[in-house]
Amino acid sequence: MRFVSFKDNEVVGLALEVDRTWRGLKDGDAGYPSDLLSLVRSGDQALAQAAEALKNAPAVNLDRVTLLPPISNPEKIVCVGLNYTDHSAESGFKQPDFPTIFGRFNSSLIAHGAPILRPEVSVQLDYEGELVAIIGKPARDVSESDALDYVAGYSIFNDGSIRDYQFKAPQWTPGKNFDDTGAFGPWFVTADELPPGCEGLRLQTRLNGQVVQDASISDMVFSVAKLISILSGFMTLVPGDVIVTGTPSGVGLARKPQLFMKDGDVCEVEIERIGILSNPIKDRSVKRAAA
Amino acid sequence: MRFVSFKDNEVVGLALEVDRTWRGLKDGDAGYPSDLLSLVRSGDQALAQAAEALKNAPAVNLDRVTLLPPISNPEKIVCVGLNYTDHSAESGFKQPDFPTIFGRFNSSLIAHGAPILRPEVSVQLDYEGELVAIIGKPARDVSESDALDYVAGYSIFNDGSIRDYQFKAPQWTPGKNFDDTGAFGPWFVTADELPPGCEGLRLQTRLNGQVVQDASISDMVFSVAKLISILSGFMTLVPGDVIVTGTPSGVGLARKPQLFMKDGDVCEVEIERIGILSNPIKDRSVKRAAA
Repeated sequence: MRFVSFKDNEVVGLALEVDRTWRGLKDGDAGYPSDLLSLVRSGDQALAQAAEALKNAPAVNLDRVTLLPPISNPEKIVCVGLNYTDHSAESGFKQPDFPTIFGRFNSSLIAHGAPILRPEVSVQLDYEGELVAIIGKPARDVSESDALDYVAGYSIFNDGSIRDYQFKAPQWTPGKNFDDTGAFGPWFVTADELPPGCEGLRLQTRLNGQVVQDASISDMVFSVAKLISILSGFMTLVPGDVIVTGTPSGVGLARKPQLFMKDGDVCEVEIERIGILSNPIKDRSVKRAAA
Repeated sequence: MRFVSFKDNEVVGLALEVDRTWRGLKDGDAGYPSDLLSLVRSGDQALAQAAEALKNAPAVNLDRVTLLPPISNPEKIVCVGLNYTDHSAESGFKQPDFPTIFGRFNSSLIAHGAPILRPEVSVQLDYEGELVAIIGKPARDVSESDALDYVAGYSIFNDGSIRDYQFKAPQWTPGKNFDDTGAFGPWFVTADELPPGCEGLRLQTRLNGQVVQDASISDMVFSVAKLISILSGFMTLVPGDVIVTGTPSGVGLARKPQLFMKDGDVCEVEIERIGILSNPIKDRSVKRAAA
């Protein structure tokens, strides 16, 4: 099942892909199943029931509504750094034997189609295409072999990074938390539609059509299963938690010459069998002047 | 005004200090003003109205209810590292000229009186006494001179840290996010009761009565006002966001011999005119066996 969260005239809605079209209901409509975070919190059966309710709902033209991130207000956005050997090397880091974890705050999230904003204070806006796993059940001290049972579904992330702010101090948080830099979507694909842990799927990032990252999810140092096992070894993961699993090599910072995103660019992250997350880039000053 | 969040028989409540006693109402009681996060989101006037509603409410014996963190589910818990020169030096870091920021997830929070849990996987459980500022209004691109207008109130934090996990990889997040390690409370003191930015107030951490940290809030490298100005320079702060402002020197990791917390210990963090945050330490294995 594929779900998309959207907003139409300030009313939130949820749609399901049915035979290559989208069928949806909005909050207030009879039979509206609730938002995706509530459904994920209610468990697999709630998602199946929602799909049942949506499959005969009216068609939704996704070009005429505003998409939302699949989940806008998770309890956690857990980001993994240095999770592809080639990217660790290009970034000048020795590959750590424990995951490199940082947090994103919800204030940085945007949906598919929304502009990634380049702030006034830096030109070093970089892309990072990544696989997202969304937790479906409370997880604590979960073994690697059981870990994928705790994944409700998958999506795509562009972990837009302001490189000079990322490295102003020993922790990367500021460079990873500028408003409107964390693109997430377009849809939520339930885990049963995809290979376990998305192993073998191809991830590609394109900037203005040029391929800048191209890797297999199997190249991750810490697989989705391993990440969930390790994370749940120190903290309780809860339904709706978003695990952003790291980016492969090819980032703009490591290129010669360096390649940063600027007003007018379009960045796409595609993961095979999941979808394409596409976002235009805009200068924040331009967007603010227009507002 | 001083507010405390509590739970009594699984029902949440809010109490106000009135002449050295606490007066409170629970969810469902006539006149219950709502939880503290909702009130902070509604603005200063909502806090004043809540105080009005609570000042003639029944007395609450805080020893007979379970305290909660002042705010249990903020959108952000923004933690500042290396914010006292002596602590940066004892930790082996050159003092950065930009704040060192990392995130805590809500899953790590506990209240005053609840046990800080030492996990099975490490003995390196360390204390860090810190001042907390709680945001009261949406803040973006705020100047340092205006920044304190955006603070609703203050509280206290013990940023319990698992040192070996903090340094397993370049980012500190795992060591800062073990379940039941972030003690927060006991109360929320509105900003009007305290000096601007809490400048000049004394912070002291005591382990089993022995003073282990002793500093002035004025020793912070980045003051509360400076932090809010810098943070709001890249992200939107929203009401209820919790800024944990960093710890002074004296942490257990830097002592010779090292001093870590263990089952049976009691750790107190006191900030003058705010209060005393006290937590016993328990082994997680012992607590789990008893559960």
